[in-house]
Amino acid sequence: MTNEAFQPSRRSDVAPFIAMDVLAEAAKLEAGGRSIIHMEVGQPSAPAPRLALEAARKALEHGRLGYTAAAGIQPLRHALAEHYKREYGVEVPSDRIMVTTGSSAGFNLAFLAAFDPGDRIALTAPGYPAYRNILRSLGLVPVEIEVSEETRWCLTPEHIEQALKDGPVRGILVASPANPTGTMMSSDALTELIKFAEAEKIWFISDEIYHGLDYSGDQKSALEISDNAIIINSFSKYYCMTGWRIGWMVLPDQLVRPAERLAQNLYISAPEMSQLAATAALGSVQELEAVKAGYVANRELLLEGLPAIGFDQLLPVDGAFYIYADISRFSDDSLRFARQMLHDAGVAATPGVDFDPVHGHKFLRFSFAGAHENMKEALVRMSNFLSR
Amino acid sequence: MTNEAFQPSRRSDVAPFIAMDVLAEAAKLEAGGRSIIHMEVGQPSAPAPRLALEAARKALEHGRLGYTAAAGIQPLRHALAEHYKREYGVEVPSDRIMVTTGSSAGFNLAFLAAFDPGDRIALTAPGYPAYRNILRSLGLVPVEIEVSEETRWCLTPEHIEQALKDGPVRGILVASPANPTGTMMSSDALTELIKFAEAEKIWFISDEIYHGLDYSGDQKSALEISDNAIIINSFSKYYCMTGWRIGWMVLPDQLVRPAERLAQNLYISAPEMSQLAATAALGSVQELEAVKAGYVANRELLLEGLPAIGFDQLLPVDGAFYIYADISRFSDDSLRFARQMLHDAGVAATPGVDFDPVHGHKFLRFSFAGAHENMKEALVRMSNFLSR
Repeated sequence: MTNEAFQPSRRSDVAPFIAMDVLAEAAKLEAGGRSIIHMEVGQPSAPAPRLALEAARKALEHGRLGYTAAAGIQPLRHALAEHYKREYGVEVPSDRIMVTTGSSAGFNLAFLAAFDPGDRIALTAPGYPAYRNILRSLGLVPVEIEVSEETRWCLTPEHIEQALKDGPVRGILVASPANPTGTMMSSDALTELIKFAEAEKIWFISDEIYHGLDYSGDQKSALEISDNAIIINSFSKYYCMTGWRIGWMVLPDQLVRPAERLAQNLYISAPEMSQLAATAALGSVQELEAVKAGYVANRELLLEGLPAIGFDQLLPVDGAFYIYADISRFSDDSLRFARQMLHDAGVAATPGVDFDPVHGHKFLRFSFAGAHENMKEALVRMSNFLSR
Repeated sequence: MTNEAFQPSRRSDVAPFIAMDVLAEAAKLEAGGRSIIHMEVGQPSAPAPRLALEAARKALEHGRLGYTAAAGIQPLRHALAEHYKREYGVEVPSDRIMVTTGSSAGFNLAFLAAFDPGDRIALTAPGYPAYRNILRSLGLVPVEIEVSEETRWCLTPEHIEQALKDGPVRGILVASPANPTGTMMSSDALTELIKFAEAEKIWFISDEIYHGLDYSGDQKSALEISDNAIIINSFSKYYCMTGWRIGWMVLPDQLVRPAERLAQNLYISAPEMSQLAATAALGSVQELEAVKAGYVANRELLLEGLPAIGFDQLLPVDGAFYIYADISRFSDDSLRFARQMLHDAGVAATPGVDFDPVHGHKFLRFSFAGAHENMKEALVRMSNFLSR
């Protein structure tokens, strides 16, 4: 009990995003007239699909946007059930699908519904920093497991067995494709890990936010493997709708009501306009595949161009729109390196320190969600920068 | 540790909204062709202000809606600082203002930023049920204090002194105007309670979501009284923007960074379109005052009409758009009574049980945010129902 003198709570002491400093500096340079190429932001540069924008425009005509059921509007839940049938060949009742205010709300609700304070949850380092920060703020214990080339940057049953020696593990959280690495688990590796979790009665949480953005064709949903898996997804990445704050979960039967009750209290409902627009976005595959074709071209360009200019240690880029580069031949301080590259070359990238407190100082994350011309220009600028 | 066999967490066992049953039944009756007058919903029937809709339309033209800073876009934060100067005569730096995804996010962030597990927070019964449910899911202990006519349904320093006998109280949460009662604290009573909290080093959280909707002219913000108060507000009620999920907080200096770090992780940002529309909504006072004039007319109609048909024990309706009626002369089971009134008279109202587990069975909440003609018709229908 430390707030005797109006102090913040202990649990609010989560890590800040160090990358925000780089972002703020980039904005300052731009405001001063400098040209900056943004390879630091994890969001598509394309707008929301045309059909989504039309649905939003139509909703504005009457203008009455109200609370919806906490689990979301029925047409969106039904359209998502159809999506699983079409894309994965899985039948899932729409009752198990819950609309959320972005994947952020999905994580918060999943963690609250499945875990009690003190529970330990295994996840990878490097990984998305919000995972461990949300877990900590909810009284949960992130067990960060260092992954490496040896397991192709993925968690394995052996990792979990190791973690079990230090105490019970209540959850395993996996993203495939992953942020910041862009690597994916093979269908077999994912199946093996989920079967292991199932046998050990460990909740498996599958962050599938980068699904749709795979470049190998071996994309599998945890839903195909286990009815006990918790699936988190969002319209932010493949569907180009970050600012709309709209996502969804697929829940095991026994978590449906608990998650719904929590959502009624913690969120009331997701924004209605975003729900209407998201329903329409699910019918925009052709337009979105064209956006993805742009990522494919950017990926090819960079997988050839980055090694050519000196960034020659890249992790496998199986999916998402990230390239995680080992920069240790240039620097062992990725934050400083990112700042210098921003100032000298006008290219913004994200230092690895947010994603991996241990080894992140040796890595830089490049996002290739931007325009192709900008990627080309970035290579030229970075080449000049590195050769100085 | 009870999720051995894939069970929900203990903390997810929060109360469901019993009123949802009534809502679902009303929807079913309507789907079957019955005419239902909705006095159960706590949201305006008016659309968002014209300027807000225009701003949203403009945002759709380019269609790129992205993440914003976690604390919100600068124009909205500045406009809110202006709002406090104009409406309350208070100077507050925009740095202390944080945009949130509805007041729901405001409560969640305030509770996480200020309190650690086990902390006790005092609040009224009757009161908004999400308060206690969010508190419980975050490991906090709601200390529900029964209020009555004796203190005009408000918390007083004496109430808190009583609660302090059972252990430390770390927070006091007050809504004025309140939901479900519609009662307000006088300016003096509010000042006295905040000064008491200040002296005792207890965080004071002021839910001001119904500000703007007062019928007495004695509206005061906690911000006028203490820089340590945490203010929660939203565009849902006065600004008619429930479905947009957009609100704000004013934070004491020392909670600004902790709340921002938590928001980065738990929400990323509020929906960008809603932020743009909300900025415009702040300039729509004339249009919104016309909406409020409708509530004034409805309030007068019901304050005369409800006692005339038999609902003669009403709490003071100082603000918001609720009338909390003691129905004990008709029933001691408000849930059953609400159901019967729905079926027989086609009027939906909210039973008090969600708001007050102890005395709620004797109360019914009427919302008068609907159309004036509907309020008139409801009185006729309920009169026939009660006289049977």
